[in-house]
Amino acid sequence: MAAHRTRRRVEFRDTDAAGIMHFSTFFVYMEQAEHELLRSVGLSVLEHDDEGILSWPRVSASCDYRRPLRFEDEFEIETRIERLGEKSITFACRFLHEGQEAAAGRLTAVCCRFPEGRPPQSIPIPPRIADELRRYVDNG
Amino acid sequence: MAAHRTRRRVEFRDTDAAGIMHFSTFFVYMEQAEHELLRSVGLSVLEHDDEGILSWPRVSASCDYRRPLRFEDEFEIETRIERLGEKSITFACRFLHEGQEAAAGRLTAVCCRFPEGRPPQSIPIPPRIADELRRYVDNG
Amino acid sequence: MAAHRTRRRVEFRDTDAAGIMHFSTFFVYMEQAEHELLRSVGLSVLEHDDEGILSWPRVSASCDYRRPLRFEDEFEIETRIERLGEKSITFACRFLHEGQEAAAGRLTAVCCRFPEGRPPQSIPIPPRIADELRRYVDNG
Amino acid sequence: MAAHRTRRRVEFRDTDAAGIMHFSTFFVYMEQAEHELLRSVGLSVLEHDDEGILSWPRVSASCDYRRPLRFEDEFEIETRIERLGEKSITFACRFLHEGQEAAAGRLTAVCCRFPEGRPPQSIPIPPRIADELRRYVDNG
Repeated sequence: MAAHRTRRRVEFRDTDAAGIMHFSTFFVYMEQAEHELLRSVGLSVLEHDDEGILSWPRVSASCDYRRPLRFEDEFEIETRIERLGEKSITFACRFLHEGQEAAAGRLTAVCCRFPEGRPPQSIPIPPRIADELRRYVDNG
Repeated sequence: MAAHRTRRRVEFRDTDAAGIMHFSTFFVYMEQAEHELLRSVGLSVLEHDDEGILSWPRVSASCDYRRPLRFEDEFEIETRIERLGEKSITFACRFLHEGQEAAAGRLTAVCCRFPEGRPPQSIPIPPRIADELRRYVDNG
Repeated sequence: MAAHRTRRRVEFRDTDAAGIMHFSTFFVYMEQAEHELLRSVGLSVLEHDDEGILSWPRVSASCDYRRPLRFEDEFEIETRIERLGEKSITFACRFLHEGQEAAAGRLTAVCCRFPEGRPPQSIPIPPRIADELRRYVDNG
Repeated sequence: MAAHRTRRRVEFRDTDAAGIMHFSTFFVYMEQAEHELLRSVGLSVLEHDDEGILSWPRVSASCDYRRPLRFEDEFEIETRIERLGEKSITFACRFLHEGQEAAAGRLTAVCCRFPEGRPPQSIPIPPRIADELRRYVDNG
């Protein structure tokens, strides 16, 4: 079991008039980390295959904030798969700055097909995808 | 007890390549609703008084998504104060579109002073503020 | 000839660590004003008709900044059509705060069809659309 | 004379319902490139020195769009200083994707002091800063 790690720097547009990274921006970075994790095993969050489009609508997102991040701070996002269900995945992300946890969040997404002109339909995660993701599953 | 209500329209920049309002954008609108609620009782999220700056850093945020919102959809945000603690407030927001709940989220913020050159310090919510906010407290 | 007018308030997410509305945000508001102008004459920036999708990719955008806008400032966006060409439109926007111009920008968009699997193709603006828009054309 | 180069990938939040990177996002990336260029010569866009704060409010920004960028496209931003004036700098940025120009923009910023409680005041660019920046000045 391994965490996926990526580094970012707080960009100026990420900040707000309180001088810190805006709380909504952590969700944008959690998604970037999720997509990088998927790319690291050859997957994309938006796949086209023989049966059409396969993607992952979010059903819930949450974040707890411990310390503010400021303009130009470098931070690491450490992502694990907390739960690999039959139809959904829960990613757990920690934001680390100078060795301390700045925030920790979760993102739960459901595996869906997108039939033309109808609402997305959840499906079991295809085995080829589940197999690739297993390396990031947290058994801690 | 009353909910605070405000209306918005999904703007083009709120959408993403999946054609729906991006999940992080719900947090931006929850904050807009919170600030409108504060203004409705004569408060601001950033106050300057005799003792300096008083503001409300976030300690947690979460959202559950039920139905997607699309470009130009009009929606209502219904905000209640779920918990008015000694030092913190939890706002609960529902996103309603055509009578159905599209999403529901929570935002918890802590009342803080910002001493020059030191980290924010949590303080008891001043009575004049707690009194104004009581009308939005959910006793349901 | 009339300008289209709409009002907004600087939201917290619009600001940055310099305490003012971020310069990129003016473009987001210019687009909101453009879309409101289109709606005011019964049009949408993204139309589906018998021949498929009709939309307006941007070819250029610019803005000059004169005075900063701050959190909770109310401002007006005044939009005119500076040029209604055969295939393109140039919108001119002024941002007004307390009677003074905070910024002024331009947005040029081209009328396009989106053929399946091929790049967008510019077409002459359909007469029914040009007719509706003429009321906002600046002959000043 | 050298251009500063940096690479980015189109993130999901950068896209809109038209499936492409939103036109306003190019300005956010132009600013990231500017800040990286400044860091590459040991400068920050927000400096604190003996005389207080030194920063660079924008006076104008513009961008011309030639080809759309899509989710997960990698692109390069090539930045030059087009004009190093007495009090202002104009950065010119090109967005390159697979060897072709996707967009080209300009950003003009003015060197300012921020006196307590008064509007920013433009000042001549300090020689130590102008000297560092000269290597990026385009004499082409």
